[in-house]
Amino acid sequence: MRATVMHAAGDVRIENVPDATIVLPTDAVIRVTRACICGSDLWPYQSMQPSAQGQRMGHEAIGIVEAVGPEVRTVKRGDVVVMPFAISDGTCVFCHEGLPTACVHVGFFGNKGNDGAQAEAIRIPYADGTLFALQVDKDDALMPSLLTLADVMGTGHHAAVVAKVSPGKTVAVVGDGAVGLCGVIAAKRLGAERIILLGRHPDRIALGREFGATDVVGDRGAEAIERVRELTGGYGANAVLECVGHGESMETAIAITRPGGAVGRVGVPQDAAMPGSQTAFYRNVTVGGGPAPVRAYIRELLPDILEGRIHPGRVFDRTVNLDGVPGGYRDMNDRKSLKVMVRP
Amino acid sequence: MRATVMHAAGDVRIENVPDATIVLPTDAVIRVTRACICGSDLWPYQSMQPSAQGQRMGHEAIGIVEAVGPEVRTVKRGDVVVMPFAISDGTCVFCHEGLPTACVHVGFFGNKGNDGAQAEAIRIPYADGTLFALQVDKDDALMPSLLTLADVMGTGHHAAVVAKVSPGKTVAVVGDGAVGLCGVIAAKRLGAERIILLGRHPDRIALGREFGATDVVGDRGAEAIERVRELTGGYGANAVLECVGHGESMETAIAITRPGGAVGRVGVPQDAAMPGSQTAFYRNVTVGGGPAPVRAYIRELLPDILEGRIHPGRVFDRTVNLDGVPGGYRDMNDRKSLKVMVRP
Repeated sequence: MRATVMHAAGDVRIENVPDATIVLPTDAVIRVTRACICGSDLWPYQSMQPSAQGQRMGHEAIGIVEAVGPEVRTVKRGDVVVMPFAISDGTCVFCHEGLPTACVHVGFFGNKGNDGAQAEAIRIPYADGTLFALQVDKDDALMPSLLTLADVMGTGHHAAVVAKVSPGKTVAVVGDGAVGLCGVIAAKRLGAERIILLGRHPDRIALGREFGATDVVGDRGAEAIERVRELTGGYGANAVLECVGHGESMETAIAITRPGGAVGRVGVPQDAAMPGSQTAFYRNVTVGGGPAPVRAYIRELLPDILEGRIHPGRVFDRTVNLDGVPGGYRDMNDRKSLKVMVRP
Repeated sequence: MRATVMHAAGDVRIENVPDATIVLPTDAVIRVTRACICGSDLWPYQSMQPSAQGQRMGHEAIGIVEAVGPEVRTVKRGDVVVMPFAISDGTCVFCHEGLPTACVHVGFFGNKGNDGAQAEAIRIPYADGTLFALQVDKDDALMPSLLTLADVMGTGHHAAVVAKVSPGKTVAVVGDGAVGLCGVIAAKRLGAERIILLGRHPDRIALGREFGATDVVGDRGAEAIERVRELTGGYGANAVLECVGHGESMETAIAITRPGGAVGRVGVPQDAAMPGSQTAFYRNVTVGGGPAPVRAYIRELLPDILEGRIHPGRVFDRTVNLDGVPGGYRDMNDRKSLKVMVRP
């Protein structure tokens, strides 16, 4: 079968690889009908050291179950399923507590030996815990929005939950990528009264406004902090969603949080230490977040997609086939595309 | 009057200074009957650059109101009052939200031009918001415990609240200073089932056990992390109270928190950036805390002291008069005293 393999920064190839197969009795194999290129795929695209073996890429998918191992109970051949970015067994204490990204058997697709979703098919460990079966046709018109349940919509929602967004609150979203824009959707969905989007790409900002952003701040660093404080009576936002992961964006996120407020961070942190620690301390600002337990959020978010209340699929502005994947990476990296959908 | 003035690291003097007086109509002046030396006073004691003018010291007191300005309504001459470490007006939005340490008029005693409490008397700005009147005699036997409401008991409680201690939880407390030991009291008071105290001073640990610690870990760094994980089935504690403020203790606190758990930090952070940021992220650990809103906690904690359910005053192991204050700093810095009470 064909799959995406990254060999070094900027070097993404479509290669013939062994077919995905059932290895363990708890596995499934799905034929990928939709996958994505993720903002987080751009970190290795910009920095990966050359590797002869390479790394399979892609961690978001919708597909059709092609085969299941003898111990799989909740999905069956022919089911249309969402594949969240993390492998989880569905039975451990963390899965029961709603944090499948801390599952005792956790793994991440397209990472450390796990198959990637930018491929014709993919092996799914712990299929019962990992996959979520949808009751829709494989070409349902809502497919782009459903696909965001694999990562970006659940991740934006996680940032909003951790930042304690609730009705009437003022929220700031740092970053106008796909996750930031889903964060806007999530904040509005949870009742935020005011949503300040920090970003500077006109197309993304326009979409952010449609999703519910009430104010936009195009500055960065000290100017952005000043501007958000002006917009909030000098105090800052109750809840701040950090959707980038750079040190500067984290520092901004903390500085624009109202004393006693919270930052929900979902941008993969690029620094070992978190800047802004003393600012957070003296303002009693809480910082939380991490790999979003998107599998646990599907049940809550799905009805809003199926009933047309939210439209996160609008973050996709380009669709490619497998051969188009290397170009998709290039375009996302050059900020020519917001988020690329892959139809293998 | 006489007051404590620090002139440089290691140089604490008792000096004659102008009498404390009413300056603004919202001021009070209190005669200090009890004050403390705080662990946080040791930071400047170890690092202060020489200053000709010096810095008044002390931010915890109980005293008797000697005079009030014409706008003061809630305390009167003769009242026995607790003076929390922060000045707060009691009327602003943050005071109303229960975060007086973010008051729009906040200030800290013994800091940036504010008088210090290790003195015969002290001027109290915003007396109505800042002071809390007690219905006890000035020499009540509970005085040591009541005095901890000015800082350490409220601060330990804040760490526990931010770390989300609740009935049945496993809690770890990093640091066996007065705040850490009050954190043990707070964790037990909030229903923790298991309390692991990280510390290595035999006297303090013994007191910690009396306060409710069920386990003690005397290691530091990687060994401490390993040990706490062993004690908690490999996962870590649900709630961790960081009561030191060093980078290493913060890193330990994060690493011993169970995925999805929370760190409440009240040790004044000595580093600009917070170590352990990526560990916190990948484990979805929340980090919060800051200067404790102790004024807001008095109402909740006071009955437990008055009715004998908690005895935080046991953290005091030495009492000095003003002349004894420089020696008190020395002993606390040399770890010969846990916490020194000052009776001017």
